[in-house]
Amino acid sequence: MSVAPATFAHTVLSSTARDFQEAQQRIRGCALFSPLLDFTGDTGHSIQLKAENLQPLGSFKVRCGANVLGTLSDEQLQAGVATVSAGNFAQGLALAAKRRGIRVTAHVPENAARVKIDALRNLDVNVVHHSASEWWTIAATRNTGAEDGVFIHPVCDAAVVHGNGTIGLEIAEQRPDMDTVIVPFGGGGLIAGIALALRAIGKRVRIVACEVEGAAALQAARSAGKPVTIERRPSFVDGIGSNRVLDEMWPVLSALVDDVIVVSAADARAAVRRLATTHRLIVEGAAGAALAAATSPRCGGTNVVAILSGGNIDNATFCDILNEPV
Amino acid sequence: MSVAPATFAHTVLSSTARDFQEAQQRIRGCALFSPLLDFTGDTGHSIQLKAENLQPLGSFKVRCGANVLGTLSDEQLQAGVATVSAGNFAQGLALAAKRRGIRVTAHVPENAARVKIDALRNLDVNVVHHSASEWWTIAATRNTGAEDGVFIHPVCDAAVVHGNGTIGLEIAEQRPDMDTVIVPFGGGGLIAGIALALRAIGKRVRIVACEVEGAAALQAARSAGKPVTIERRPSFVDGIGSNRVLDEMWPVLSALVDDVIVVSAADARAAVRRLATTHRLIVEGAAGAALAAATSPRCGGTNVVAILSGGNIDNATFCDILNEPV
Repeated sequence: MSVAPATFAHTVLSSTARDFQEAQQRIRGCALFSPLLDFTGDTGHSIQLKAENLQPLGSFKVRCGANVLGTLSDEQLQAGVATVSAGNFAQGLALAAKRRGIRVTAHVPENAARVKIDALRNLDVNVVHHSASEWWTIAATRNTGAEDGVFIHPVCDAAVVHGNGTIGLEIAEQRPDMDTVIVPFGGGGLIAGIALALRAIGKRVRIVACEVEGAAALQAARSAGKPVTIERRPSFVDGIGSNRVLDEMWPVLSALVDDVIVVSAADARAAVRRLATTHRLIVEGAAGAALAAATSPRCGGTNVVAILSGGNIDNATFCDILNEPV
Repeated sequence: MSVAPATFAHTVLSSTARDFQEAQQRIRGCALFSPLLDFTGDTGHSIQLKAENLQPLGSFKVRCGANVLGTLSDEQLQAGVATVSAGNFAQGLALAAKRRGIRVTAHVPENAARVKIDALRNLDVNVVHHSASEWWTIAATRNTGAEDGVFIHPVCDAAVVHGNGTIGLEIAEQRPDMDTVIVPFGGGGLIAGIALALRAIGKRVRIVACEVEGAAALQAARSAGKPVTIERRPSFVDGIGSNRVLDEMWPVLSALVDDVIVVSAADARAAVRRLATTHRLIVEGAAGAALAAATSPRCGGTNVVAILSGGNIDNATFCDILNEPV
């Protein structure tokens, strides 16, 4: 599965509509055609919420997990699969793997939310913890230091990107007149998939990444014209943000992303609270960041779709946010 | 709008597919075609969740509010409208009324959730509090004791029932093979609407009401063969349950409801927690009761649809439930 950087960028940038349509077939029955909900707040533009938090296991990652395993044979999978994931991708992979009896090892960063780790263990995943820097090294080198099967990169893998891109096909069907899509930026696999799928089916839509202050590696890369290492400040937003854009993803991102909006953790928290109290949705910080970006004056656009990427947030954190004074 | 009991039962029991299809046209743009989500728990049967908590204002009541106002002329509405409602129906009415500049008065019981009252005030509704017994008297007599416009009964009104019934049309389209529908029982307008719509379009589906222990007026009426007054014990479930089935609704219910499942408040709480942790949905107690009934051994059925009627629960109550030891 592991491919050289140049090959990965070239492969995904050459994706066709058929790649995404085949992915849509593979994930059927495993992932939800998720609802697109009206955001009812007062903004100068329309905002629609793509509720990926309602997916099985609470995030869009079930799409790519199901698609990537669908492209591999039983022989290829005999020794199991391994991945680096803060939890959501590993969960999606594990759900699809469980159906085929495939062993999964997840290498996770030490700050991963407990709810995600518990969910992995419930899915019989072998969980290995690493420091943040060790974890990013595994992601960059694709070397887990163990014999744990086919390595599946949660971001830089064409089948992963195509699985993520099924969201693009869905929103194009649900909201043909959208002009802007806001996507939480973690490793780039989600935004690349959505952007490529929309491009492949001929939709011209502004692609906007959102990041959180203190972990805005994409904004830093765009300013520098290449990936640069930043000092990452932790926040309650654990599903996105990094200290550096992956080198092999950079050519893809620089070709596809039109803009980046960086929001504060406080704004992401307020958006999480707002989605709970006015939309009865439980979302994680990354999804809150997407709504915060969509409601910011920086957003632009008339018909905006914000991707609510996941809902995996600790109960305690969530209740803290709900109970904060407004 | 006020009609004699015999007329109401006769009118709604004569409903045609066209009544519901017209309602579906009237509510378009105001209510969501709500998603039907897979419940992922281990049960011997399939359970699908009709997520009405995701509606604008957090409950199915926006459907009937939009439909009932759609049947009235501007002349009829000059003096405003009044209703008796624990909050959800009044909200739906108010949302539809606001668009037409119509004044709304809501007569509410003293135990109504604060979040519902706050939402009414945000919609410029004139809120009048009553004791529980006074409130049920208004519901039974349709006399608010004030000159506050056209009285709209939240349950015993054909246009309200037709608005609710649009849920029946949707689930028939989303899940043609369903054999059982579980509906939280408050006044009976929701279950009557769904049952009548399914019947009108020729679907044979088992119609099951759910109630909470200590407020199971429908079960008491079915045992006695007529409405009887019970002593109601309050619980966190404030959207359903009553001390007596309304006399004018009884002929409708006895013709349409196949079974009643009574769940404990503890089971409803556990279901609320489960929907939060495994489905990222915020629901009120009534919706929790529907899932508790759907997962109970009493449920029966192979393809079960549970109606998650609303998501209007106080933040404090919700967090208490989330933080309870499992």
